[in-house]
Amino acid sequence: MIADLTPANKILEKTERYLSVRHYSETQCKPLLIEDYIPQPVVFISPPKWHLGHTTWFFEEFILKNYYDGYRLFDDNFSFLFNSYYNTVGKRIMRADRGNLTRPGVEKIYDYRKYVDEHMEKLLCETEDENLWNLLVLGLNHEQQHQELFLTDLKYILGHNPLFPVYRENYDLTNQQNESEGFLKIQEDIYEIGHSGKGFCYDNELGKHKVFLHEYEISKSLVTNGELIDFINDDGYKRFDLWLDEGWTWVNENKISAPRYWHLIDGRWHQYTLAGLKPVKNRNMLSHISFYEAMAFAEWKNMRLPTEFEWEVASAALDWGKRWEWTGSAYSPYPGFTKPPGAVGEYNGKFMVKQIVLRGGSSATSPGHSRATYRNFFHPHFQWQYSGIRLAKNHSL
Amino acid sequence: MIADLTPANKILEKTERYLSVRHYSETQCKPLLIEDYIPQPVVFISPPKWHLGHTTWFFEEFILKNYYDGYRLFDDNFSFLFNSYYNTVGKRIMRADRGNLTRPGVEKIYDYRKYVDEHMEKLLCETEDENLWNLLVLGLNHEQQHQELFLTDLKYILGHNPLFPVYRENYDLTNQQNESEGFLKIQEDIYEIGHSGKGFCYDNELGKHKVFLHEYEISKSLVTNGELIDFINDDGYKRFDLWLDEGWTWVNENKISAPRYWHLIDGRWHQYTLAGLKPVKNRNMLSHISFYEAMAFAEWKNMRLPTEFEWEVASAALDWGKRWEWTGSAYSPYPGFTKPPGAVGEYNGKFMVKQIVLRGGSSATSPGHSRATYRNFFHPHFQWQYSGIRLAKNHSL
Amino acid sequence: MIADLTPANKILEKTERYLSVRHYSETQCKPLLIEDYIPQPVVFISPPKWHLGHTTWFFEEFILKNYYDGYRLFDDNFSFLFNSYYNTVGKRIMRADRGNLTRPGVEKIYDYRKYVDEHMEKLLCETEDENLWNLLVLGLNHEQQHQELFLTDLKYILGHNPLFPVYRENYDLTNQQNESEGFLKIQEDIYEIGHSGKGFCYDNELGKHKVFLHEYEISKSLVTNGELIDFINDDGYKRFDLWLDEGWTWVNENKISAPRYWHLIDGRWHQYTLAGLKPVKNRNMLSHISFYEAMAFAEWKNMRLPTEFEWEVASAALDWGKRWEWTGSAYSPYPGFTKPPGAVGEYNGKFMVKQIVLRGGSSATSPGHSRATYRNFFHPHFQWQYSGIRLAKNHSL
Amino acid sequence: MIADLTPANKILEKTERYLSVRHYSETQCKPLLIEDYIPQPVVFISPPKWHLGHTTWFFEEFILKNYYDGYRLFDDNFSFLFNSYYNTVGKRIMRADRGNLTRPGVEKIYDYRKYVDEHMEKLLCETEDENLWNLLVLGLNHEQQHQELFLTDLKYILGHNPLFPVYRENYDLTNQQNESEGFLKIQEDIYEIGHSGKGFCYDNELGKHKVFLHEYEISKSLVTNGELIDFINDDGYKRFDLWLDEGWTWVNENKISAPRYWHLIDGRWHQYTLAGLKPVKNRNMLSHISFYEAMAFAEWKNMRLPTEFEWEVASAALDWGKRWEWTGSAYSPYPGFTKPPGAVGEYNGKFMVKQIVLRGGSSATSPGHSRATYRNFFHPHFQWQYSGIRLAKNHSL
Repeated sequence: MIADLTPANKILEKTERYLSVRHYSETQCKPLLIEDYIPQPVVFISPPKWHLGHTTWFFEEFILKNYYDGYRLFDDNFSFLFNSYYNTVGKRIMRADRGNLTRPGVEKIYDYRKYVDEHMEKLLCETEDENLWNLLVLGLNHEQQHQELFLTDLKYILGHNPLFPVYRENYDLTNQQNESEGFLKIQEDIYEIGHSGKGFCYDNELGKHKVFLHEYEISKSLVTNGELIDFINDDGYKRFDLWLDEGWTWVNENKISAPRYWHLIDGRWHQYTLAGLKPVKNRNMLSHISFYEAMAFAEWKNMRLPTEFEWEVASAALDWGKRWEWTGSAYSPYPGFTKPPGAVGEYNGKFMVKQIVLRGGSSATSPGHSRATYRNFFHPHFQWQYSGIRLAKNHSL
Repeated sequence: MIADLTPANKILEKTERYLSVRHYSETQCKPLLIEDYIPQPVVFISPPKWHLGHTTWFFEEFILKNYYDGYRLFDDNFSFLFNSYYNTVGKRIMRADRGNLTRPGVEKIYDYRKYVDEHMEKLLCETEDENLWNLLVLGLNHEQQHQELFLTDLKYILGHNPLFPVYRENYDLTNQQNESEGFLKIQEDIYEIGHSGKGFCYDNELGKHKVFLHEYEISKSLVTNGELIDFINDDGYKRFDLWLDEGWTWVNENKISAPRYWHLIDGRWHQYTLAGLKPVKNRNMLSHISFYEAMAFAEWKNMRLPTEFEWEVASAALDWGKRWEWTGSAYSPYPGFTKPPGAVGEYNGKFMVKQIVLRGGSSATSPGHSRATYRNFFHPHFQWQYSGIRLAKNHSL
Repeated sequence: MIADLTPANKILEKTERYLSVRHYSETQCKPLLIEDYIPQPVVFISPPKWHLGHTTWFFEEFILKNYYDGYRLFDDNFSFLFNSYYNTVGKRIMRADRGNLTRPGVEKIYDYRKYVDEHMEKLLCETEDENLWNLLVLGLNHEQQHQELFLTDLKYILGHNPLFPVYRENYDLTNQQNESEGFLKIQEDIYEIGHSGKGFCYDNELGKHKVFLHEYEISKSLVTNGELIDFINDDGYKRFDLWLDEGWTWVNENKISAPRYWHLIDGRWHQYTLAGLKPVKNRNMLSHISFYEAMAFAEWKNMRLPTEFEWEVASAALDWGKRWEWTGSAYSPYPGFTKPPGAVGEYNGKFMVKQIVLRGGSSATSPGHSRATYRNFFHPHFQWQYSGIRLAKNHSL
Repeated sequence: MIADLTPANKILEKTERYLSVRHYSETQCKPLLIEDYIPQPVVFISPPKWHLGHTTWFFEEFILKNYYDGYRLFDDNFSFLFNSYYNTVGKRIMRADRGNLTRPGVEKIYDYRKYVDEHMEKLLCETEDENLWNLLVLGLNHEQQHQELFLTDLKYILGHNPLFPVYRENYDLTNQQNESEGFLKIQEDIYEIGHSGKGFCYDNELGKHKVFLHEYEISKSLVTNGELIDFINDDGYKRFDLWLDEGWTWVNENKISAPRYWHLIDGRWHQYTLAGLKPVKNRNMLSHISFYEAMAFAEWKNMRLPTEFEWEVASAALDWGKRWEWTGSAYSPYPGFTKPPGAVGEYNGKFMVKQIVLRGGSSATSPGHSRATYRNFFHPHFQWQYSGIRLAKNHSL
């Protein structure tokens, strides 16, 4: 991690950024009922309450405990409750049990946030420690990741309620159209991949390195809902020859016949959005699609997904950031990747198997939390992110 | 079902009983946070919110819809949300999904209760229909069953929270001692079993019939915590020869080594109670024990569990009602058992396989909801009820 | 166990009976290919090779090791390989692994049988020990049980091969018709239940005792294939109201729509038999039916299954022995039941939960292995035995 | 696929190669008992009988049916029985059911092989069709793959028999030592990857293309048993920080504490080999290791696995072919990858997700079935192949 704000006279700016990010998390929760904070419908979804607590614990565990002289934990149990997956920092509740925790109540979680924020603010005014600032930036980026997960997890919770409740009127994050069309051609060459410079990045973006790319073409637009409906109407979900073998198993075992949140009502496709149930608009960019579906769709189009390198090289000339874009690349370490020591070393490296890289960012991504080198990753069957498809092809095609 | 209140001039009494039972459910919820109403930690536990809605739906579905002229449903979706297992009355959400429903919010459930109660009160004042009154009594008994489930389900939810939250101070339902000791001898004879008379009972108690019992002895007291600790200390949970084969599998697969809610802390047994974590008192009656454990304990004592018939015959001379008592009897229909037509026929009969009869009643049972002929039933591995052990033996022993 | 042959001068008779039962097991295997001895398609099926080894091990373990001076085990590993479920006599391979054991080869199993038989013959000629003789009789009855399991397990193995191989021409064990019809009325009275006298019985038949039976009627005939086809045609497998709740789950999860081994081919019902695939004959007695199906069928007929006591009391006047008949009784201990000490105590008692009693005997039961007090038992979902339905009703119906 | 034998005058050579490969499969089976041909202990293992039938079916389905005028199927059922995963060519039995098929018997499978071989021989003498020859070469390579699977599957079957049977005396395929040591340094450059030339290769090796590699070092030797024992003794299987997250779950759920087939007997490590149980030799190359273990071991050494590109570039200077070597590369398509049309298109492409590339070849690989561009692939938890570890590192380390 490289801090993006180093001079001592920027203390104020840092504190303001801290408070701003922290405040954003709470603003997101404004429309919630207390009831909405609790459930964990499936194991990969976390309750809103847990997101609020966990992001706060991150600052307490990694910063306040180490840098704030005489800091007293808000509650001794919270480390156990709000540690996500850091084996380095001790025991934690099983991930599947997050939805059982009615206590501490929501109000106490807000007290916890306030307590930590007050101590953080005090600490930030008094220190210029570079390591602390690096951890601060990491913690804020971490919270921003959870802000996006908050939205996608909440959509899952509300979207599986047969009443299709509205989170916020007019807050439909799927309602975007492409601004460009056609394909961009990129020449064969050696290119540089990975993050450099002073801004923040995660460890998995480091190890700036060279890759050789053959000539390729990459679409300027993302696949639309209308194109996916064509795929459905051409029996795309029923033709084994389009699918990866594990994708075909996934389709059949889960009876998948459309993107998540889609419902065929009286012959017309609808989708649940955070603004409630809406008709699917053909011209909007497709979202909530798994890697398996993305691969089958590309096969149906006689094209392919771009690799994450092809994506990164082309990105400066592309319009991106409204959907996470499945690449054709498995999530692996860059040549020079090294895990940081201690708990933060568990942030990324240990997940580098069986997952797929997504690039770009979505309409649910927090402001300022996107960059061209960002490597998001999920298992290939997940649909609950705002994920879409950009196609690529070899020049000869 | 046989109504216990028939004369027309008892309308007032009925209405008061209705309101009293309904009010009791809400009183039980007083100490809850909104958060506590939501979770369903495992599939056999229902969220408090669901209990409140489901019992209300029962009156709406079976009484108001049929007897109240021009009744308008409070909400069209509620039948789908709050039907438990009645296939006769249409679709319902999967049992495992009850914990995902944050909406309708808790407040709306209370509105629902109020709406239904107002209509019920009006209806009750205007009718003397015998069938309606029978359904009313069934509905109230149904709600009382859920009042007990509310307590045991809530104990499960709070008792699996690592913070061991208190529901109510001094509300420890496990804190009872035996008042008698020794064995009661019952002579060989033909006895009558089952319910008769005018009071309410469930269909599974009907078919009053004769059974022949050989001479036997039945304990006047229930097994205590201290005796169970002796069993533990004698390696009772580790000796295969004491256990039913499926019980032994259950012990090993679930790593069972004590009753549910028991924790060995610094060499001393503690148990979670609705009043928080407490040291186990040796002289108190044991609770939260499965049938498998009850059978193994009886084997260890060279005794056996009484059959449900032996229990019922002896019950007049026994002190009972503080623990559900596992009997040695599988849950089967009485000779003259017939299922009532329609949805209420699904109340009991369809569960008569693989389950075990419990007799008596527990300290969590609602007032007035016990009788000697009552047949409770659960699968043999369940521990989450206030269940205990009464021993029996053949006279020759 | 009570030996049925006690006088010392009956040594010859015993030896002959021993050799006759043992020989019968091998005769059953004559039509097999070596390949057929091996597989275990599902966990509750044992490979033919295992049956041959396990029954032999029983004699070695319980008789030769204890009664034959200087006996040397045929192979030290065989106790580990061929112990079924006796925890008392040490470790054993997991039940699910029986189908993996290609070695020892089939030939060696026959060598094992020969070795044990030679030593048994020698031992039987030299002893008059009453205990040994009791164990001998138990061992022979045990082997007869496995002879029946051999046939039903083999039918499962061959019957799930898409080629429907023939075990023996003309060996169709489902090809029997009823010889009587109508209902038999039994008067209300106290009756005696259980085994007495000198002949062999299992421990679960002991504890002769009295039961009171109300007047009832029991069918003289078993349900036929034709009646079951009527049930199918009346949507019997699709009407939830006919089924136990767990039965309904079983039907839906396993997509059950007919008895096991039935196939609808070009609109006509066929069934796999040990003589190959055959058209279903309407007048034959139904077989390969689960308890769940039996209960649903009885419900459809507005009747019920007889209890095991009703069955036993009526049995002298019934024609039985061609199908195992599901009773309405859960498998529970008789009032005076006591487990024998040691390993033979694991024979029956530890299975007395969640299972259902079947009475009678089937066309696959070995000669001489039936009696009116015999209590067979299986879990309610099993169909692979030659199991059928006898109906009963209350007199008032 | 590119045929390696094109001239018309090479018919004889082709026929001989066909017969030689086919004969090798049968030679491998010589030491088997009939019993050994049958079992399928877990779903990813196929019975020897199935390998013999499936490889034969491949020639019948893809060659004889299409190229042999008037060809009559040996048995109409065999396509159903012996199709592995080709959806294109119709229905097939479930993979998990392969071990239930005792019929057709082993002898009939050999008849099938003979029948197909005779027709193939006749066909090969009469044709010069290029497509047929390409399919022939594919079929022979396919059979060679199954020859290796035969050995690893058989090892699994026999190796999980508590008697540890010997397949062949002195046939220990784990008994190899390294011939070189130290690290090889490879310069930063653009390299060519993939297959070219006339020899046979699979479709996944095609799309010869350029990659840029940074400077790296790759070990000349494979990790030895002794080094793995050091890892065990340093608690390598117990330190979460060494493992991928899914690897750590795999270790704990399956209680993995050593490579497959290893047993600690009286404090000394032994391993099951096809020659029986043997002491582990420290200097031999490690085998039967999963990708998860390989990654944890590399982490423990502060090194990494080579990518498949690094491996291929270095391969000419390495001694390889005795263990399949886990690379750090997920199995993905090469830039120019295209699936062949029809069933052969299902050979490789549809498996390109969640699996890991292994390079090299093992002591169980059939003669002539290795090349530097060969891309083997398995899921990361599999241990049953003769898989080992070669380490790499960045030059700067």
